[in-house]
Amino acid sequence: MLITSVEITPIAVQDPPLLNSEGVHQTHALRSVIQVRTDEGLTGLGETYGDDQMLVWLRAVARKLPGTDPFATNLLMATVTEVMEELAGDSANEVPVGAGYPMAGAASSKTKAAVFSAFEVACLDIQGKALGRPLHDLLGGKVRDAVPYSAYLFYKWAEHPDAPYPADSWGEALTPDAMVAQARRMVETYGFTSLKLKGGVLRPGIEIDTVLALHDAFPDYPIRIDPNAAWTVDVAVEVGQRLEGALEYLEDPVGGTPAMAEVARKVSMPLATNMCVTAFEDIPEAVREGAPQVILSDHHFWGGMRQSQVLDGLCQTFGLSLSMHSNTHLGISLAAMTHFGAVSRSLAYSCDTHTPWQTEEIIVPGTLGFENGAVRVPDGPGLGVELDEDAVARLHEQWVKCGVRTRDDVTPMKAVHPEWTGETPRFTSL
Amino acid sequence: MLITSVEITPIAVQDPPLLNSEGVHQTHALRSVIQVRTDEGLTGLGETYGDDQMLVWLRAVARKLPGTDPFATNLLMATVTEVMEELAGDSANEVPVGAGYPMAGAASSKTKAAVFSAFEVACLDIQGKALGRPLHDLLGGKVRDAVPYSAYLFYKWAEHPDAPYPADSWGEALTPDAMVAQARRMVETYGFTSLKLKGGVLRPGIEIDTVLALHDAFPDYPIRIDPNAAWTVDVAVEVGQRLEGALEYLEDPVGGTPAMAEVARKVSMPLATNMCVTAFEDIPEAVREGAPQVILSDHHFWGGMRQSQVLDGLCQTFGLSLSMHSNTHLGISLAAMTHFGAVSRSLAYSCDTHTPWQTEEIIVPGTLGFENGAVRVPDGPGLGVELDEDAVARLHEQWVKCGVRTRDDVTPMKAVHPEWTGETPRFTSL
Ligand SMILES: [Mg+2]
Ligand SMILES: [Mg+2]
Repeated sequence: MLITSVEITPIAVQDPPLLNSEGVHQTHALRSVIQVRTDEGLTGLGETYGDDQMLVWLRAVARKLPGTDPFATNLLMATVTEVMEELAGDSANEVPVGAGYPMAGAASSKTKAAVFSAFEVACLDIQGKALGRPLHDLLGGKVRDAVPYSAYLFYKWAEHPDAPYPADSWGEALTPDAMVAQARRMVETYGFTSLKLKGGVLRPGIEIDTVLALHDAFPDYPIRIDPNAAWTVDVAVEVGQRLEGALEYLEDPVGGTPAMAEVARKVSMPLATNMCVTAFEDIPEAVREGAPQVILSDHHFWGGMRQSQVLDGLCQTFGLSLSMHSNTHLGISLAAMTHFGAVSRSLAYSCDTHTPWQTEEIIVPGTLGFENGAVRVPDGPGLGVELDEDAVARLHEQWVKCGVRTRDDVTPMKAVHPEWTGETPRFTSL
Repeated sequence: MLITSVEITPIAVQDPPLLNSEGVHQTHALRSVIQVRTDEGLTGLGETYGDDQMLVWLRAVARKLPGTDPFATNLLMATVTEVMEELAGDSANEVPVGAGYPMAGAASSKTKAAVFSAFEVACLDIQGKALGRPLHDLLGGKVRDAVPYSAYLFYKWAEHPDAPYPADSWGEALTPDAMVAQARRMVETYGFTSLKLKGGVLRPGIEIDTVLALHDAFPDYPIRIDPNAAWTVDVAVEVGQRLEGALEYLEDPVGGTPAMAEVARKVSMPLATNMCVTAFEDIPEAVREGAPQVILSDHHFWGGMRQSQVLDGLCQTFGLSLSMHSNTHLGISLAAMTHFGAVSRSLAYSCDTHTPWQTEEIIVPGTLGFENGAVRVPDGPGLGVELDEDAVARLHEQWVKCGVRTRDDVTPMKAVHPEWTGETPRFTSL
């Protein structure tokens, strides 16, 4: 079986004005849909970032794939490396890299891992379809039937200024009470049994109050907060100490592994990250420092499903725990995340997902439902999801029209608060 | 597809009187052949140690497999864990553990990994056959077409005292000259382009002379020596310093990671091991100590093919190199070793194999030939080898008759040298 063609389709989905330490989500989030076709009539699906820079990278690799074997993903890694190193030498290929993911230039190993991942998932989808086996069977088979996710809570505005579409149904959330209401609705709708609060938005004192209010309202729920490095070490330590007993882990309170380790020594809950440890090359320092203790896996940037299994084994080896990171994503990614969650041995926490915030989808509904906050592991061939071609066409059209081409949370915040820089740490006291 | 039955066949193969730091190989080496059958008429092959204790472990797990899915190897790991923990509680299941591999009691994680491996390989063989794909394709596909092995040189006697079969054709090798002759024959026959000398047998000064004689005779050949912890730190350092420029690595000169690290700081070549780092749990200490720098993988005790890939990724992450260990083995194991060698990214050295020392085989000839010292990666379905049922029956009969039930290199040496203990370190000076 050989690959005959690869199609990369940029799409844009409406995204609510969710706040974080960098600023505010844009009106549209970018994704790309990867379709890898074979001479046996099979199509493998992938989904990843959709920034212009990522599209340049994906397309450059896509051109090399026809004629290759979709089982040969180890060789695909070599192809990606080669292509990216060629691109790196040509500045015409450099466009601004979007925020929200750890990739730098084309030559960086993190970029290579991210680009590889998009195609690896599509190849595994093909393999599963060819074999009539779910993707998780290609990774040793599921060890759980459903993968638990957490309610991902955001401080948010009621609407985007000048959005080309009506406001979302969630309303404003800028107080502890409003956040409890958001959590109630999300838990009622999806059945989540744990909560994740995106922090780094309001003064740390208010975010402490928010966590405590959530803890009061959901006393049995594990809660985590993730301020995306918006705090100084002193602030992080104070927050951690005040929230003792209320947090299952503290995610990226500060930037960089040494600072994380400094915080870890002074608080009782483990520290988690998807910022200072985002690739294998970051692990030795974390092992040396003894923190962070929880790594948020993400097949999109750790180099795909099999490398995520390597990360899993590495966490077991060094006594680290695994959780899962999420950027804004749609159903192909959710399926892949769920297949990895199904086979992971070190997964010790419910995974992150932005699913509740998305009103648009690219897969045919029915396969990936939430029940008690968990997604049933798909058992159909490959990823087990089917592309909704009309939806992809519509969201591609939306991409053409919306004009968003790079993730940038700073500019839309600056439009409202001209003094905004998005720089961290932003809070030096409670 | 479900597993319907599992057959474990102990076999014994004639083994030359090869010397090592523990003593001398017995007249017969023990292996077990694993055949896992499915309701689709497929049979998956595995091969591992054949000591009585291993047979108890394998059979206990084998009883649990009918009715399970050969793709569900992650669940198989849970089954193995459960079974082994049950066995550990019952002393009736405890028989002496053989030498030459790192497993301890049933409850130890190393034992579980070894037992799991035997079945995982058989399950992957089934998967490949079901899919019409070579095993390496289930691991991301080969990155090389042939896997290089080294000429495994042994000091040896001309024959076993009281062997029930004629002497082997290699003759005695107890001097540097005899070893050069052994190397010449092995290189001429198999085309090997690197040499491995099993040391720890003669006085270190003679072993130094042997390496230097080999280096003189094969000036372009990478050479390694492995005395299996027969030396003190001081001896190891002196050997390492005298052999500077002649060794690609020094394998297990001393016992234990701290002692290995001490040696590593004083010699220029890297230190390699299949003794102090034999499982994931041993890696953190090696990383902390900065030595050994080369890990000898072995799917038989690292928990199978996929866990070997995790080890591969772990080596990449921490800047360690990978080589491959061998115990006495036959063709099923050689096929599995070659499939892993085909997909490994960190493999930086030619692999060990005992193949030249075996005169009996269990697979139909033709698939696994040596060319220029390398084995062409099988591209047939699964492992790509076919069992020779007659040969298995014959070697099982030999097992029944030979009486050897546990690997034990000490006793046959003691029969010749009554003062022998096999204890290490044995050499405290050159
Ligand atoms: Mg985060
Ligand atoms: Mg060795």
